[in-house]
Amino acid sequence: MALIVQKYGGTSVADPDRMRAVADHIAFTRSHGDDVVVVVSAMGKSTDNLIKLANEVSDRKPGREMDMLLTTGERISMSLLCMALADRDVDAVSFTGSQVGIITDTAHGKAKILEVRGDRVREALADGKVCVVAGFQGVSTAKEITTLGRGGSDTTAVALAAALGADACEIYTDVTGVFSADPRIVPQAHKLTHINFDEMLEMAGAGSKVLALRSVEFARNHHVPLHVRSSFTWEPGTWVTSEEPSMEDPIISGVVTDASEAKVTVLGVPDRPGVSAALFEPLAAANVNVDMIVQNTSTAGTTDISFTVPLADMAVAEGIVADVAGSIEAAGVSHDNDIAKVSLVGAGMKTSPGIAAKMFRVLADEGVNIQMISTSTIRISVVVASSDLERAARVLHTAFGLDSGQAYSAPLPERR
Amino acid sequence: MALIVQKYGGTSVADPDRMRAVADHIAFTRSHGDDVVVVVSAMGKSTDNLIKLANEVSDRKPGREMDMLLTTGERISMSLLCMALADRDVDAVSFTGSQVGIITDTAHGKAKILEVRGDRVREALADGKVCVVAGFQGVSTAKEITTLGRGGSDTTAVALAAALGADACEIYTDVTGVFSADPRIVPQAHKLTHINFDEMLEMAGAGSKVLALRSVEFARNHHVPLHVRSSFTWEPGTWVTSEEPSMEDPIISGVVTDASEAKVTVLGVPDRPGVSAALFEPLAAANVNVDMIVQNTSTAGTTDISFTVPLADMAVAEGIVADVAGSIEAAGVSHDNDIAKVSLVGAGMKTSPGIAAKMFRVLADEGVNIQMISTSTIRISVVVASSDLERAARVLHTAFGLDSGQAYSAPLPERR
Repeated sequence: MALIVQKYGGTSVADPDRMRAVADHIAFTRSHGDDVVVVVSAMGKSTDNLIKLANEVSDRKPGREMDMLLTTGERISMSLLCMALADRDVDAVSFTGSQVGIITDTAHGKAKILEVRGDRVREALADGKVCVVAGFQGVSTAKEITTLGRGGSDTTAVALAAALGADACEIYTDVTGVFSADPRIVPQAHKLTHINFDEMLEMAGAGSKVLALRSVEFARNHHVPLHVRSSFTWEPGTWVTSEEPSMEDPIISGVVTDASEAKVTVLGVPDRPGVSAALFEPLAAANVNVDMIVQNTSTAGTTDISFTVPLADMAVAEGIVADVAGSIEAAGVSHDNDIAKVSLVGAGMKTSPGIAAKMFRVLADEGVNIQMISTSTIRISVVVASSDLERAARVLHTAFGLDSGQAYSAPLPERR
Repeated sequence: MALIVQKYGGTSVADPDRMRAVADHIAFTRSHGDDVVVVVSAMGKSTDNLIKLANEVSDRKPGREMDMLLTTGERISMSLLCMALADRDVDAVSFTGSQVGIITDTAHGKAKILEVRGDRVREALADGKVCVVAGFQGVSTAKEITTLGRGGSDTTAVALAAALGADACEIYTDVTGVFSADPRIVPQAHKLTHINFDEMLEMAGAGSKVLALRSVEFARNHHVPLHVRSSFTWEPGTWVTSEEPSMEDPIISGVVTDASEAKVTVLGVPDRPGVSAALFEPLAAANVNVDMIVQNTSTAGTTDISFTVPLADMAVAEGIVADVAGSIEAAGVSHDNDIAKVSLVGAGMKTSPGIAAKMFRVLADEGVNIQMISTSTIRISVVVASSDLERAARVLHTAFGLDSGQAYSAPLPERR
């Protein structure tokens, strides 16, 4: 008998029909004798609707009150799901983040989990009950209701799975798994049957939206095997585990694209200690999420520093950078919103030299100009013009043998 | 400096505009230097919408999960109201029933308040904050979220006012106060400036919907002066206090009508000990809310027992009564859904004999047949055909001098 944590996202429980389908699936899992802990998100667009309502009521939205408001969405989902389970003779009980003992810090809107107590869940499991837990929320050390920020329900599921020593954490979403590329951009993209945590982390960092980076990090650190799959097809999805790739695995797992960032370049920056800190400290203080940073070698005592930020943060970033550029006596600032990031991710890169060179050659042959480059041991990212995004992704997908589909992937390990 | 508890019902916070108007009023109250604790209901029809959603998801709705679901409505209201207050530079903080320490028994859906701790409210008030508390909810001795049932937010407000020793509890609703009759039925009805708890209790018991009976009982037992008024006009409403009526007060305060009940008669009941218990015990066990009970004097060893129940409970009541009638060997059962209850309420009745006789004469002269009679020291209720309801109410309103309006009421005591 295994203990399975299942997380259902907002689209999986968007309406009464979907809610009942999820209840059917939980009842099915339960009928195999496994213990089940379910983590649910708010129904469909309900969180967005609450934010809209708040905007209509007030220009000022204290974080504590915003968290109090938004956490109602998951409570509605979890209680309705328990009712649907009761209809199927499955004994289920819902718990808020607070009731489960998900203790967080006090940063409203983006709280970090400090501890998962889980006593009530353990008791309910011992009583033979299915536990349905509100995702995205916790209670702070100051006894206030908090939310975990974007992708918070994934984090709740993984943290609970770790605390309870679950055998697997299934993440149900509206896609059937992790793909070798975004199928809307690269039609030949195929679903990966298996990927390791480091690759998944790089993919999330490179812009893949399937799993929140924080939840993957948590799963890796606590050795929680993840299974990303669809609540619309219920077919097996992608396993994310700590297994190292075998010889049969492809060198490259996927091409990740991200068109949500913009580029800022500070020109003619005096080449002396402290200028980078002077630039990035105020951006960090303003919560601007700086992604790639590239600094060229100094020529003639000055250098150029380029970096990317989410388009949404651009307005804030611009003001800060203009101020700093003046105070550090840089020659000027330019920015470009029409850029895109294309990344190759693959654990095989570590043992397979020449991937970067081949990537650059493929893009050059396609006439795609590379504006910025950044690498890690298992990822290479380039910034290109956004008009080149599709072409670049497709040509790389083909060149690295990803078009031929599952033949390049490792066989699915024997798991349920 | 006074401490005022203000309770806003669902229509008072039905949409962002209403919510902002309420925030303006709270800010206004606060600007006079008073401490304010606010109790809010769920917005408009949101509780009904949640119930509808639950019905769509499941046929079985465990009480615990239903309470988890329904309590989200007040949480949404309270957090939005705090945001609107922040917009007005009023430092406010919201609390759930659980956070306030409203401890209830474990009867989900109709929990009773056992204790109000209120520590967090006292601390927040001492910090100069306005406290906004979710109505209708508490936390049980088993640490589960509970709801207080119909009119629960009124009860929350009064219980909090009692626990905090508030100077007054203002109940804001969609009517401007307590009226001498329902203005939709008796156009000459006027607003009462003052009424005492006993009268208000009898009015609530007789079918007046302005205040929930339970909250009036609580207010009387804990000496909490109530002020019922409208959040649409903000004009002074009706004070409900423990003051005894003076000589200048009218003998009758109001005519209360109730068309929400049906009548059941058990015919030819053997006149022996235990038959009433045999009849009403199973009804109570099934949560059927029996109101008036009338038993005629025994003739020839048998008697008839008539009683009224809410129309909504009629189906359940019918089945139970048919069973019992068989087992106690009654002659038969009849029922009538087309009845209405008309009541005269007035504290002056105690010292003014002949009110009942005059009431019966007035109805007789109008040709209204009386089916059942029940009395208390300050109330006389009769059951009539529902088609006679309007005529009976109007003629009584006129006959007891209520048409002439506020001239018959005591002057408003000097209160804010």
